Amino acid sequence: MRAIQLSAFDLDHLQRVDLPAPRPGPSEVLVRMEAASLNFRDYMLVSGQLYRGVQLPIVPVSDGAGTVVEVGEAVTRFKPGDRVTTFYKSRWIAGAMRPEWEGAEIGAPHPGVMRELASFDQYSLARAPGHLTSLQAATLPIAALTAWQALELAHVTTGQTVLLLGTGGVSLFALQFAKLRGARAIVLSSSDDKLERAKALGADIGINYARHPQWGALVREASGGIGVDAVVETVGAATLAQSLEAVRMHGFVGVLGWLGGMEATLPLASVVLKRVRVEGISVAPLEEHERMVAAIEATGLKPVIDHVYGFAQLREAFEHLAAGRHFGKLAIDFSL
Amino acid sequence: MRAIQLSAFDLDHLQRVDLPAPRPGPSEVLVRMEAASLNFRDYMLVSGQLYRGVQLPIVPVSDGAGTVVEVGEAVTRFKPGDRVTTFYKSRWIAGAMRPEWEGAEIGAPHPGVMRELASFDQYSLARAPGHLTSLQAATLPIAALTAWQALELAHVTTGQTVLLLGTGGVSLFALQFAKLRGARAIVLSSSDDKLERAKALGADIGINYARHPQWGALVREASGGIGVDAVVETVGAATLAQSLEAVRMHGFVGVLGWLGGMEATLPLASVVLKRVRVEGISVAPLEEHERMVAAIEATGLKPVIDHVYGFAQLREAFEHLAAGRHFGKLAIDFSL
Amino acid sequence: MRAIQLSAFDLDHLQRVDLPAPRPGPSEVLVRMEAASLNFRDYMLVSGQLYRGVQLPIVPVSDGAGTVVEVGEAVTRFKPGDRVTTFYKSRWIAGAMRPEWEGAEIGAPHPGVMRELASFDQYSLARAPGHLTSLQAATLPIAALTAWQALELAHVTTGQTVLLLGTGGVSLFALQFAKLRGARAIVLSSSDDKLERAKALGADIGINYARHPQWGALVREASGGIGVDAVVETVGAATLAQSLEAVRMHGFVGVLGWLGGMEATLPLASVVLKRVRVEGISVAPLEEHERMVAAIEATGLKPVIDHVYGFAQLREAFEHLAAGRHFGKLAIDFSL
Amino acid sequence: MRAIQLSAFDLDHLQRVDLPAPRPGPSEVLVRMEAASLNFRDYMLVSGQLYRGVQLPIVPVSDGAGTVVEVGEAVTRFKPGDRVTTFYKSRWIAGAMRPEWEGAEIGAPHPGVMRELASFDQYSLARAPGHLTSLQAATLPIAALTAWQALELAHVTTGQTVLLLGTGGVSLFALQFAKLRGARAIVLSSSDDKLERAKALGADIGINYARHPQWGALVREASGGIGVDAVVETVGAATLAQSLEAVRMHGFVGVLGWLGGMEATLPLASVVLKRVRVEGISVAPLEEHERMVAAIEATGLKPVIDHVYGFAQLREAFEHLAAGRHFGKLAIDFSL
Repeated sequence: MRAIQLSAFDLDHLQRVDLPAPRPGPSEVLVRMEAASLNFRDYMLVSGQLYRGVQLPIVPVSDGAGTVVEVGEAVTRFKPGDRVTTFYKSRWIAGAMRPEWEGAEIGAPHPGVMRELASFDQYSLARAPGHLTSLQAATLPIAALTAWQALELAHVTTGQTVLLLGTGGVSLFALQFAKLRGARAIVLSSSDDKLERAKALGADIGINYARHPQWGALVREASGGIGVDAVVETVGAATLAQSLEAVRMHGFVGVLGWLGGMEATLPLASVVLKRVRVEGISVAPLEEHERMVAAIEATGLKPVIDHVYGFAQLREAFEHLAAGRHFGKLAIDFSL
Repeated sequence: MRAIQLSAFDLDHLQRVDLPAPRPGPSEVLVRMEAASLNFRDYMLVSGQLYRGVQLPIVPVSDGAGTVVEVGEAVTRFKPGDRVTTFYKSRWIAGAMRPEWEGAEIGAPHPGVMRELASFDQYSLARAPGHLTSLQAATLPIAALTAWQALELAHVTTGQTVLLLGTGGVSLFALQFAKLRGARAIVLSSSDDKLERAKALGADIGINYARHPQWGALVREASGGIGVDAVVETVGAATLAQSLEAVRMHGFVGVLGWLGGMEATLPLASVVLKRVRVEGISVAPLEEHERMVAAIEATGLKPVIDHVYGFAQLREAFEHLAAGRHFGKLAIDFSL
Repeated sequence: MRAIQLSAFDLDHLQRVDLPAPRPGPSEVLVRMEAASLNFRDYMLVSGQLYRGVQLPIVPVSDGAGTVVEVGEAVTRFKPGDRVTTFYKSRWIAGAMRPEWEGAEIGAPHPGVMRELASFDQYSLARAPGHLTSLQAATLPIAALTAWQALELAHVTTGQTVLLLGTGGVSLFALQFAKLRGARAIVLSSSDDKLERAKALGADIGINYARHPQWGALVREASGGIGVDAVVETVGAATLAQSLEAVRMHGFVGVLGWLGGMEATLPLASVVLKRVRVEGISVAPLEEHERMVAAIEATGLKPVIDHVYGFAQLREAFEHLAAGRHFGKLAIDFSL
Repeated sequence: MRAIQLSAFDLDHLQRVDLPAPRPGPSEVLVRMEAASLNFRDYMLVSGQLYRGVQLPIVPVSDGAGTVVEVGEAVTRFKPGDRVTTFYKSRWIAGAMRPEWEGAEIGAPHPGVMRELASFDQYSLARAPGHLTSLQAATLPIAALTAWQALELAHVTTGQTVLLLGTGGVSLFALQFAKLRGARAIVLSSSDDKLERAKALGADIGINYARHPQWGALVREASGGIGVDAVVETVGAATLAQSLEAVRMHGFVGVLGWLGGMEATLPLASVVLKRVRVEGISVAPLEEHERMVAAIEATGLKPVIDHVYGFAQLREAFEHLAAGRHFGKLAIDFSL
């Protein structure tokens, strides 16, 4: 079967190969993969910025979707014909992540989704929302779940205000989920065009941070002088101080990444006197993923896909991702 | 000034009187009352079913809205011209209700809103949503807050399913709030006509309980065989067993009243094995009321008013309430 | 190997048999069983009051402890020589119980612990506290975990007051856990002797409910007139109304069983006006079990064992349990 | 009456003065002050490091205790003879702190406790634990409440492990509260002598951070290789990175101050991948204070007082505090 492998840490070493078709073990599910989507984690893998200890060659990319072909004898969760997505943090079903479950992530160290057939443990898969194509469903696992978890941990409810930094996949899912809860959303971007597109998706206020580098006070003013209830902090080093300026007393700052560098400066007096909760978020357990799928189905949410690439265009897709100019998700259609 | 007083426990003893205009104390706010709405509690007072120890005569009715006329020197929360509603559980600002705060409820034992001018402590009032008339705002204090609190305590989120018993004021507010959160709503009624009206408000499923007295199993089936996430239990004695049948494992049953009698039968094995949370709810603190007002403003929610009566028609309004056939709230317009 | 089987629903049909020794599957752990303890669930099984659909003959009894003999190739949680207890609700690792995990309970429908060797999935076992003998550890799985979960769900903290109904296994574990949290404990019993023994274990107040059938008001008086923060409701039908009398506003009533009948009367006005939380509890996920084991180890807690029986005395042990006069747990030592 | 006033920002300008005795307003309580205790906030005030906008002269010091002499007509919470402490964050009764309640703090901008008689709003006072002297009770308001709140927000339960930085007032209260919950405590200090004294108070492990500047890994090792459940972060800038190293996955870091500078470096990947919650804490509402008093009474906790000064020795007490070598609280006995 057709697959793409990374043989060395560099975009130049993504190679199309032919691999033997896998067979499902007793608790496993064999899936015909139909689509994938990219996350920054995938780029860090292929460009050698993380996971350097991983065994090469490896099939890359964590998030994908497809249709169940065959199930092992102990499988209770799926049957042939079911449409599924991967579930990135395999084994993390609920509660706290356990050290014994580390190291089973799809797309490194376990093989990723860039192959026609793949066998997964039945708890490494989740049902795809019924109204979405596989291409759409493939965008969910990491980005949508991270956004969902941020709003859940922040207890965002109707009438609250959420601040979103940028218009990447996580931020736009957070925007859509916030609006579905009846919350207000403020979006930052350096592009007026993207701010307009965010408003078309429901954003109440757009702020161009390039024109307003001290946007913290501006956001606070735009939220009744009190500050926003929650910040979905997808950037980190360059933005955390302004995010703390923007958030209200007892507010929430969900830290989801470190796009802007590994270390941020934390203004202590602001954290203490405003009693802010700064919480690290890295996906969520299957239990939350399933609640998110129910939410997506009940509301008919459709993911925002910036561009669709074919199976053979993985490298171009990564270059697009690295450029950082996308609005929503970059997806890969295996039929193209 | 014009007022209505209850001189003995009976609808026949609601009398129109002329009272001296009050003056605000240092922490008080003088309000020109413009509208009121009825809750079952008001009917229990005037019909002598509760609060018999209250000092008569008393100005009845707990919920009202109006405009601030004058404020005492220590008042920081309001200024003349502000539009306000009463806040029923005066003094309960946040956290747990404290025994020392009991006994200050507007509409018994403290005087109610059926008067042209009324002086209230500044923490017995809340800002009215900006887009609502006083008539609309007057429907909020007890009914909307109780519904809001039920959904908050149940942590209802997008994609979950909520069961509502009937189409009274609390149930319809809960329906509207549930839809604003992106939740699904199942509504019970004995009237197909009311079920149609509930669907027009957003209800996903309507069940006629008169035709389906064993509706618990039906509701469970209608929620994917799993059961609903939360029940807003406005009835009690006649319905609790079916509500426990309808709710999912780890689900929530918010008990808000005892319309159907003082005692319910609790099926213990069902509570234990399904790990259900049954929680009593009686309004909520001011902190929740203010979050609810923010939610109403952010979403533009409009209360459902079944019928509007004039100031002099209080008795007719009570008779309508007692008949139990209303769809939403019964309101009183002081200008009529 | 030696085992005991139930061949028909009756204490008379507990038979000593010789079974072939099991072998562990890839994810399984082979355990040499050294002790067991009884729960009321076991008695309901053998006396045919529940689980009548279970396939007979069956090895009975859910809770046991022993030493790991051998592990399957995929086992990561245990190694030979580890001392373990069973974990009753096999597969429930964290979060909400899932329907797909039902039906794997040890001691019906899955085989129980009354056998010299038993193979369990690695997530059906938990590490035994290091300072406890297997006999002591065998008392933990159902009773201690249920008590632990009740205090966790109630958020019992230092300085609060907990009410315990009786002196069975669950109640005494709840007493010990409450004292370890710095809480006060009020214990009810019909025996002054047992009340004295409860006080020796740390109970602050003992009340003889036989002499004070209206103990609700007495308990409230004994807790500063405010009521207790939490009730561990192990009885149900006969006691719930008094428990609701005894609990404070916003208090917690954890319903753990239905010893006194399947239906209780719920006084609705009390639930609503006191805003009480009544929550069903049936053991807890592995995550909580492991937190409990850490707590038992950190504090050196020793379970209270009323009487120890030999492997061949299972019937006598059940008769003791059925008589309901034990103080703490009834345990079975496989070496006797 | 005798009082001490700060006439300019400097320890040299603490002056003993004679002020007219206050009279209680309708909602106020007149208290004969008998003792005080110092917090770092007091030192920041008198040394001019904070609150420079405050109106001088001012009676300094936030925390005190005494006996009620007289109450205003609207006072319901106290009566003459009651023993009370101040409650620093006047008006914050429960829930979230509200901007409208800012600016009423005792000891700046409102007058502090260094005077023989003081009038306070009834919600600016709390009942003193019955078994404590006024000297002991005076140590509670800020330091004990902050420590209590940290453990409550962290949900510290029996068997968990808490890390305490240093042996100041907040750290030692946190140590005592942690032990009362049945938790384990690891204490850091640069003095072996203080570590011994901490162990005498119940600390399980002491680590000399002067000898082990990379103590994060050491703490993690000392907590089973997993990391501590909660860190009470009283230092900040110099320690936060090590605290994040020491804490477990999903752990809690309560940030209580900024003794070591206004800005800390936050290692983002660690926060995200360990899903750590970093939360600012600045005292707590009255509701928590009252729960803490109940806990102190139920357990007989006695505060650790390093040194007692007389009323006229306030300057010496401040110099002691500034030197930072105390073990527990510095208290002032008004009878000396």
